[in-house]
Amino acid sequence: MIQPLKYDRETGTLFLLDQTLLPDEERYVQVKTLDELIEAIKALRVRGAPLLGLAGAYGLLFAVLESEKSALFWEELRRRVDLLVNARPTAVNLKKEVESILADIPMTAEPYEVAAIVYEKILSLESRLINDDLSLAMHGADLLKGKRRILTICNTGTLATGGIGTALGIIKVKHSKGDLDVAYLCETRPVLQGARLSAWELLKENVPHYIITDNAAPYLMSLGKVDAVVVGADRVARNGDTANKVGTLMLAIAAKHCGIDFYVAAPTSSFDMTIADGNGIVVEERDPEEVLQIRGVRIAPNGSRALNYAFDVTPASLIDGHITEQGILKAPFAEVNYIGR
Amino acid sequence: MIQPLKYDRETGTLFLLDQTLLPDEERYVQVKTLDELIEAIKALRVRGAPLLGLAGAYGLLFAVLESEKSALFWEELRRRVDLLVNARPTAVNLKKEVESILADIPMTAEPYEVAAIVYEKILSLESRLINDDLSLAMHGADLLKGKRRILTICNTGTLATGGIGTALGIIKVKHSKGDLDVAYLCETRPVLQGARLSAWELLKENVPHYIITDNAAPYLMSLGKVDAVVVGADRVARNGDTANKVGTLMLAIAAKHCGIDFYVAAPTSSFDMTIADGNGIVVEERDPEEVLQIRGVRIAPNGSRALNYAFDVTPASLIDGHITEQGILKAPFAEVNYIGR
Repeated sequence: MIQPLKYDRETGTLFLLDQTLLPDEERYVQVKTLDELIEAIKALRVRGAPLLGLAGAYGLLFAVLESEKSALFWEELRRRVDLLVNARPTAVNLKKEVESILADIPMTAEPYEVAAIVYEKILSLESRLINDDLSLAMHGADLLKGKRRILTICNTGTLATGGIGTALGIIKVKHSKGDLDVAYLCETRPVLQGARLSAWELLKENVPHYIITDNAAPYLMSLGKVDAVVVGADRVARNGDTANKVGTLMLAIAAKHCGIDFYVAAPTSSFDMTIADGNGIVVEERDPEEVLQIRGVRIAPNGSRALNYAFDVTPASLIDGHITEQGILKAPFAEVNYIGR
Repeated sequence: MIQPLKYDRETGTLFLLDQTLLPDEERYVQVKTLDELIEAIKALRVRGAPLLGLAGAYGLLFAVLESEKSALFWEELRRRVDLLVNARPTAVNLKKEVESILADIPMTAEPYEVAAIVYEKILSLESRLINDDLSLAMHGADLLKGKRRILTICNTGTLATGGIGTALGIIKVKHSKGDLDVAYLCETRPVLQGARLSAWELLKENVPHYIITDNAAPYLMSLGKVDAVVVGADRVARNGDTANKVGTLMLAIAAKHCGIDFYVAAPTSSFDMTIADGNGIVVEERDPEEVLQIRGVRIAPNGSRALNYAFDVTPASLIDGHITEQGILKAPFAEVNYIGR
C-alpha cells in the first residue's frame, strides 16, 4: 500500500514520500516545522490537490504548536496560516481544508486545547479523502463501463490524494473489474508526474499502461485508440470551468474535436463555489528552469527563456461532466449540488 | 553562418553537424560510406525533411562510388539506393530527391561518369534548397504581416533545410523586418528539436523567443497570446493532409478551436502527389526509449512501456494554407500547382 504521507504523533514528525525522487528512489523526508512543510509543498515533494488539503491540515497543526506559547496565539496562528495557504495558489484544497478546520475551532478554546481539536479533524479529513475517492471511482467506473482505453494526464492516484485516487482511481477500479485494456499516461511535462508517478503506481498494481509524450495524445485520439479522457482538477469554478495540470485544455479541445468523452474526476472538496468562472482562478507560474532542465539535465541553450504555466483552465463547455463522490455532476453547479462538506 | 552539412570532394568526406549533440556541443561527424550515412540519418544526426533530401543525394553519391567497380553496377546501385531511401519512411524528400536524381542519369552513361553527374545535380539541389527557402520565407512574411507572435514546433530552420529554413525562416524574416515580437517554440518531445535546435538558431540571430512545453501551446492560444501558428512538413498529400512532427495535429486542432491562423510552410519538394490523402502516409514509430529517457536520463520506472509516434497527420480541413516557394497554395492541389520540379 502506497502511503504518500504519515504522521508520528509521538515525535511530531510528518513523513512525506518525496515525490520529486520517484520513481528512482522511495525516500521519506521528515518534516517537523511549518517552514519545512511549506518548502516541501513548494518543491512538489508533496502534491496533488486533495493531498495538499491534508498536508495543509498537518501544516495547521504545526502552526498551532508553534503559536501555542505566544501570548498572541490567534494572531500568530493567523500569520502562519496565511504563509501556509499561499504556498501554492491554484489548488483550492490547500486553502479550503485549512480554513475549514480553522473556522470549526470554537473561539472559546484555550490555545493548549487547539492542537488536539485540529488533530481530530485531520483524522476525519483523512478518512473522508479515502471514502470520497472510493465513491468517486465507483461512480466513474459505472459511467465509463465498456470504455476500455482511457487516457489521462498528470498523477491523480494515491500520491495525489492519499486514497485510491481520482482519475487514476477510476482506472484502477476499471482494471479490477476487467473493464480496462490500457491506460494511456501523458508524461506531463514539465515535471513528468505521468511518466514518473502514475506509471509507478500502475506498475505496482499491474495495470497495463503506455506512457506517451503529451503532444501525441491528440494524435492517438484521432486514430480512434482512445475511448475516454479522464483528468483530475485543482480547482473547479461554479460554472464548471476547471483548472488542472497544463495540457488538460489540450486534451479537452482534442477530445471535443474527435468526439471522445472528456470527464473531470474530482471530489467536491476541489470545487470553489466562491468563484463564478475560470477567470477567477489564479494559474501558478513556476520557475522556468523546470522547463529548461529535465531531472537536472539542461535541454536548451543558455540564454533561451521559457514560460512555465503549471496549470491551464478548461472551459465547462468542453467538459462532459464532473465525476465526484456524490455522483456525476453537470455544470453549472447550483449550491444544492454542493452539500455535505 | 550555420552549416549543417558540408562535403569535401577531395577526400570524399561528408561532414554532418551532429544534431543530437546540440546545443551543448557543435561537433561535426565525418561520414565516408553509405552505411555511416544511413546510421547518421536513423540516429537523427542529420534531420529535417529538405535536408534529408540533400543528405540522401550525398548518399546516392556514396552508393555510386561504392558500386562503381562492380560488373553489375546498376543492380548494385539500386540495391544500395533501396537501403538509403528506406532509412526513414515519413519525410518524402529523402526518397524523392534520390529517385529524381537517379531517374535523370542517362541510361547510356558509363559507371565511371555517373559520380560526376550526380555531384553536379547535388550542387544544383543545394542551390535550389537555399532559393526555395528564401522565396518561401518572403511569401510567408508577407502573408503574416502584422502577426507579431508566432508559435511553431520542431526545428524547421537552417538545421532542417540548409537554407534559411521554412517556418523558422519566416520567423527570421519577420524579425529582420521588425515585424516580430516573439516566437513561441514548442520544446517538441521526445527529441526536443524545438528547445535544443530552434532555440539555438534563434539565439544566434538574436530573435526573441520563449520555449514552452508542448502541452502549454493550446493554453497560450486560449489566452490570446498567439497570432498565428506556422509549422513545417515532412510530407504533404495531394488533398493537403500533412504529416509533420508529432504535436502538429494538437496545434492545428487548438488553433481552429481558438480561431487562430494555422499554416504549413514547406517547399513543394515536400509534396507527394502520388498520395491521395493522409491515409497513404507511413508514420514512423521510433524506439520507445526516446520517450522513456531524455538526454540519457530515465524519466519512468523500469517496466513501463511507451509509444513513440515520431509524426502525426493533420487533415487539410484544419490547415489555412500551405506556404511554399511558389506562393500560398490552398488544398486540394491540382497537378498544375506542382510544376518546376
